[in-house]
Amino acid sequence: MIGGGQGAFIGAVHRIAAQIDNQYELVCGAFSSNPEKSKASGEELGLSPERVYATYQELFDKEKQLPENERVQVISIVTPNHVHFEPAKLALESGFHVILDKPMTFSLAEALELRGVVERTGKLFCLTHTYTGYPMVKEARQIVASGKLGNIRKVYVEYPQGWLSTFKEGGDNPQLKQASWRTDPKQSGIAGAMGDIGTHAFNLAEYVSGLAVTQINANINVVVEGRQLDDDGAALLKFNNGASGVLFATQVAAGEENNVKIRVYGERGGLEWQQEDENTLKLKWLDRPAEIYRTNGGNYLSSYAQHNSRTPAGHPEGYLEAFANLYRNFALCVKAAMNGEEPQPEWQDYPGVEDGVRGMAFIENVIASGKSDKKWIDFTI
Amino acid sequence: MIGGGQGAFIGAVHRIAAQIDNQYELVCGAFSSNPEKSKASGEELGLSPERVYATYQELFDKEKQLPENERVQVISIVTPNHVHFEPAKLALESGFHVILDKPMTFSLAEALELRGVVERTGKLFCLTHTYTGYPMVKEARQIVASGKLGNIRKVYVEYPQGWLSTFKEGGDNPQLKQASWRTDPKQSGIAGAMGDIGTHAFNLAEYVSGLAVTQINANINVVVEGRQLDDDGAALLKFNNGASGVLFATQVAAGEENNVKIRVYGERGGLEWQQEDENTLKLKWLDRPAEIYRTNGGNYLSSYAQHNSRTPAGHPEGYLEAFANLYRNFALCVKAAMNGEEPQPEWQDYPGVEDGVRGMAFIENVIASGKSDKKWIDFTI
Amino acid sequence: MIGGGQGAFIGAVHRIAAQIDNQYELVCGAFSSNPEKSKASGEELGLSPERVYATYQELFDKEKQLPENERVQVISIVTPNHVHFEPAKLALESGFHVILDKPMTFSLAEALELRGVVERTGKLFCLTHTYTGYPMVKEARQIVASGKLGNIRKVYVEYPQGWLSTFKEGGDNPQLKQASWRTDPKQSGIAGAMGDIGTHAFNLAEYVSGLAVTQINANINVVVEGRQLDDDGAALLKFNNGASGVLFATQVAAGEENNVKIRVYGERGGLEWQQEDENTLKLKWLDRPAEIYRTNGGNYLSSYAQHNSRTPAGHPEGYLEAFANLYRNFALCVKAAMNGEEPQPEWQDYPGVEDGVRGMAFIENVIASGKSDKKWIDFTI
Amino acid sequence: MIGGGQGAFIGAVHRIAAQIDNQYELVCGAFSSNPEKSKASGEELGLSPERVYATYQELFDKEKQLPENERVQVISIVTPNHVHFEPAKLALESGFHVILDKPMTFSLAEALELRGVVERTGKLFCLTHTYTGYPMVKEARQIVASGKLGNIRKVYVEYPQGWLSTFKEGGDNPQLKQASWRTDPKQSGIAGAMGDIGTHAFNLAEYVSGLAVTQINANINVVVEGRQLDDDGAALLKFNNGASGVLFATQVAAGEENNVKIRVYGERGGLEWQQEDENTLKLKWLDRPAEIYRTNGGNYLSSYAQHNSRTPAGHPEGYLEAFANLYRNFALCVKAAMNGEEPQPEWQDYPGVEDGVRGMAFIENVIASGKSDKKWIDFTI
Repeated sequence: MIGGGQGAFIGAVHRIAAQIDNQYELVCGAFSSNPEKSKASGEELGLSPERVYATYQELFDKEKQLPENERVQVISIVTPNHVHFEPAKLALESGFHVILDKPMTFSLAEALELRGVVERTGKLFCLTHTYTGYPMVKEARQIVASGKLGNIRKVYVEYPQGWLSTFKEGGDNPQLKQASWRTDPKQSGIAGAMGDIGTHAFNLAEYVSGLAVTQINANINVVVEGRQLDDDGAALLKFNNGASGVLFATQVAAGEENNVKIRVYGERGGLEWQQEDENTLKLKWLDRPAEIYRTNGGNYLSSYAQHNSRTPAGHPEGYLEAFANLYRNFALCVKAAMNGEEPQPEWQDYPGVEDGVRGMAFIENVIASGKSDKKWIDFTI
Repeated sequence: MIGGGQGAFIGAVHRIAAQIDNQYELVCGAFSSNPEKSKASGEELGLSPERVYATYQELFDKEKQLPENERVQVISIVTPNHVHFEPAKLALESGFHVILDKPMTFSLAEALELRGVVERTGKLFCLTHTYTGYPMVKEARQIVASGKLGNIRKVYVEYPQGWLSTFKEGGDNPQLKQASWRTDPKQSGIAGAMGDIGTHAFNLAEYVSGLAVTQINANINVVVEGRQLDDDGAALLKFNNGASGVLFATQVAAGEENNVKIRVYGERGGLEWQQEDENTLKLKWLDRPAEIYRTNGGNYLSSYAQHNSRTPAGHPEGYLEAFANLYRNFALCVKAAMNGEEPQPEWQDYPGVEDGVRGMAFIENVIASGKSDKKWIDFTI
Repeated sequence: MIGGGQGAFIGAVHRIAAQIDNQYELVCGAFSSNPEKSKASGEELGLSPERVYATYQELFDKEKQLPENERVQVISIVTPNHVHFEPAKLALESGFHVILDKPMTFSLAEALELRGVVERTGKLFCLTHTYTGYPMVKEARQIVASGKLGNIRKVYVEYPQGWLSTFKEGGDNPQLKQASWRTDPKQSGIAGAMGDIGTHAFNLAEYVSGLAVTQINANINVVVEGRQLDDDGAALLKFNNGASGVLFATQVAAGEENNVKIRVYGERGGLEWQQEDENTLKLKWLDRPAEIYRTNGGNYLSSYAQHNSRTPAGHPEGYLEAFANLYRNFALCVKAAMNGEEPQPEWQDYPGVEDGVRGMAFIENVIASGKSDKKWIDFTI
Repeated sequence: MIGGGQGAFIGAVHRIAAQIDNQYELVCGAFSSNPEKSKASGEELGLSPERVYATYQELFDKEKQLPENERVQVISIVTPNHVHFEPAKLALESGFHVILDKPMTFSLAEALELRGVVERTGKLFCLTHTYTGYPMVKEARQIVASGKLGNIRKVYVEYPQGWLSTFKEGGDNPQLKQASWRTDPKQSGIAGAMGDIGTHAFNLAEYVSGLAVTQINANINVVVEGRQLDDDGAALLKFNNGASGVLFATQVAAGEENNVKIRVYGERGGLEWQQEDENTLKLKWLDRPAEIYRTNGGNYLSSYAQHNSRTPAGHPEGYLEAFANLYRNFALCVKAAMNGEEPQPEWQDYPGVEDGVRGMAFIENVIASGKSDKKWIDFTI
């Protein structure tokens, strides 16, 4: 693991996600740009001191010299955005498979370069767009793909948060540190809310609908005085099949938690999923009663939804299980690759480098649109 | 009553709304442009045949000649949009108070002229934006006005319907007739969905937030092939205090009923109301638990919410009661006017001619924006 | 109308319910045992003074002497329980149809006698168990009757209220007066909560399940010190087909409103309805997704549900509309009777004298069980 | 780990729960009464073959001979009920701490004996009543304990399932095997539903309310023909402070998943929690708006709720995290014991041997009541 030292929220989440299904063992790490903090974190996590490294460069260097059956196989990178590209590239080039936190890179240019590295090295790559790991989100995608809703006409996606309603930058407790780097253009890139949660919403919209955004018309705001990056935005969208939609993501919806939600409507029906009721997928129909699909609800579910559940219906599977689904599917594919076997399609259903490229393109396009007087800008990569 | 003959949905709703609180008696009508249908409708409603008129002109003519204590006092107009302005103007000029279905007129020009007539005649005027009649919507407005949420930053309003997901125009049953006139530019004006439900969403946004829209950036669509007017649209909004927002209204969200919903966020908290849970207002706060306000829930509610309830908490008050609140408040103001008394502020809280003017301006501005290449257009009246 | 003078909650509800569908006109009344209050109430309601009577005896006497086309046709009785039987009996014997508030009488003996009067006079009789007027409750009954759920195994019904959590008896505002008579054995009979809301729960259970309770095992409590009648109770139930169930009704569930709820399970599925989501009926199935039936949701609904709706799906119909459904169906049957026509089965689906007899038997049996050391007592009439 | 071999649902759950917080490492096991299956299971789980044992006796024997820093410290027992007591006793007596699946033993007599063993050995003991591991259930208990609701008057608890609505015994797939042993008196003991889920409901009621059941009046049923043990039951309850309540648990509520739910009402307010909305606790008040407490919602939460959360509010924590909370708290106490430190009160808040004794007493008392003609039986241990 690169990053995720003491006090880092997402590092702990990655470690839990990796452990849930017993597919990974944490064997080494460079947990912080501060070597002492890295060491302390490694110790706390029970690692052998000799495999806690001062830098990621050192980690790759040393690990690749270990015998094949001892060295680390998968590198998980959970640093702030500006430290995504370099370690990811180096890891891939050092022969490791990579799991990387979103957004993929600091810029679209880096993203495109990283895509090239992935292609060139042939290593596997996973980007942790967690929400696509929920069984009912997977089911939603399968239902759209099945054609049951007919041709898709509308996609509404939203991600309201309230935690940045006040100016918290510069503070020292863990939540305030989150606020600091996520609003700092040097660490986050050109986008704040759009990069942090807008990319999740965008990815969810394309994942579930199976469509690609082709045009964007956005309003991007810095609502809280003194903030350096956007904390709010909304965009009208057009998709490659002629459908249209609305995306909004905000960090100043005071009182909101993380209720990411998606609705997709086709000619014959629609579907709705939201994280606050994570194990429910509502299907609505033109001429018959709405239906409630449920995680592990039965044989009516697709193999994708079934494969990504663990507990009997009604025992809620939450965010960590969704995250673990990404880790598990990636592990199954890594093992298949190591064994020269063909992975099942359900295993391959995790976000990859192409999602990362599109996510970075979203950031650049939505920010460009926000600054532009032009009504619609083409979604370009 | 003008319009609302046999088979007209909204005429029946107006009649029930008027009757619920025993403040009105239906005494006369011109229920249809077809005199025979008018006659039959009047008979079915138990009116004296001599007060069922062939035309609204005849109705005003004859009624104003009746002795003051016999003649009708309030004219309710429930015709399609293209027959709003003329009868409303004539009714006011004939000395009657007027209740008019929304949108107020066929065009903004008519709306401005009607506003002049209302001002000149001094007669009272109510526009039936029903959703503002719900007790919890009134409470929402009062909470924003109280400053409890702090300065308002975001307004999200939506009105998804699915009933026009297919081409129904030209059919003959009541629902299909609804579809026909509402999608016919000769009867509805320049807008379909934006006029029919977009105006409701717009009115709700301004009513609850207490703000005025100043700029619009809209995407307006005709989704169903062959349809003459828009059946779908979305708009980014800017408000006069610097807040921004999103409005969408669609009639092609297959499977949706009429779940109009509004969310407003300020510096310290937010609120959420939707018609599917009409007696609940959710208040969310930055630093304490969310609260659930309920219709008739107790003394914590404002006088506005309390005044507009009838039944003990938990006995749901629905759409017809919200509609009846408009009728009742208008009646209380009419009586106060007749008695030369000052109406209470709670009674005066019904939509009036200014809401109508702004609603028509919304239609013209949102349609103009939809057709424009300009990103933002000023909201002009 | 008998009873329902100024300040009486349920009288106003009955009047609204009667007016909603324009099937009734309030023409006369004896609104209070206090003649002056009756007079004042009648004036407030806009009645001719000569048809506001000092006593119900006088009302029946005078009204039956009026010409047939002038006299009142239906008597609505909304007095406290101890003044149900006498006016109802006298009204029926005077040739009027009767609508009576629940519970039907002061005692089971009275109920049985009243049943005889109804049978003997041939007049129509309606008991206002409001909850059976909801479209989705009617749908629930039809679904059970259709056999779709298979043989019924479990019935759970509950009615939690919190308004009597403190001792309010003896106070003088309208709500406190409600508390006073409803907890006074001289006015309410042998039961408090069991009579006031337990009967509703019991009626709902038998109405929806189509079954009859055969045995009761109850725990009845007076929770608030000083109260004279039960304010809380629960009962285990056995039904005539071998099913079992649980009923509870309480007025000391602090913070609860009136969220009456029923769940019924058969071999193949179950259903759930509650007043807080009044226009939704959830159907759950053993081997396929749950379904959401909605008021006016479409042709998949039974004729019973469709007949009892007024507004397009998603415009909520509430408590007053449910109440109005009882009044309207009764009116349709009264008219059919007057015209010598056969009423439609949907019209006849309102609670009648048999429901009243069973409700009074429930009160006597559940109170007897509460006092008994015997585990199960037979439900006897 | 004892039990939990291939195909066993609850074994996998225990393993995930143990791994989530990185507090445990699976080092040895006797996974099945069939030595070959045990071996295969251990291999699948990646254990060293020499620490996969044919029997639990062998496991304890061999492990206790290992050096202290190598041997297993905590034994997790996830066998069917009839194989709880012996391995738990032997584990404790062999010097290991024990985590045991509920219900604790096969009979109350065994439970009492096991309590003696725990006391005598001084080893730590955890019983996995999972639902008490949810942060919002912990909060509920703290709120009752704080006195905010006033003296408790009513406790309603329910656990509806539908999975045994048909006769599944004897089948061979994993779910059918579950059905087989859970309905087999030789493996499950005297109770089916009451032991499997009734004990959960009972434990939840006592845990949240802080009260003890003193009397039971139960109706216990075998609904599905041919079944050997109860699959349904309901009980009226009395508590040691004079409160009363209702408990029901059923496995024949067709279409229900595992929506265990509890409501507790005191003089001033009530609370409600259910597993289908696991991260929400509703607080209802006599005279002010209801409040929504949320997992990780903020500083308004007790230290108990905060300690048992991992992810920012709105990222749902589900069943496995609730389960993991038991494991983690137990680990923290084990470590404290090993270090001779005083555990924090939040760590000690896991179900223990006393809960197990009361759970077994519940089974014996509720089944006795079900068979008895006596209305109330004292809750005896």
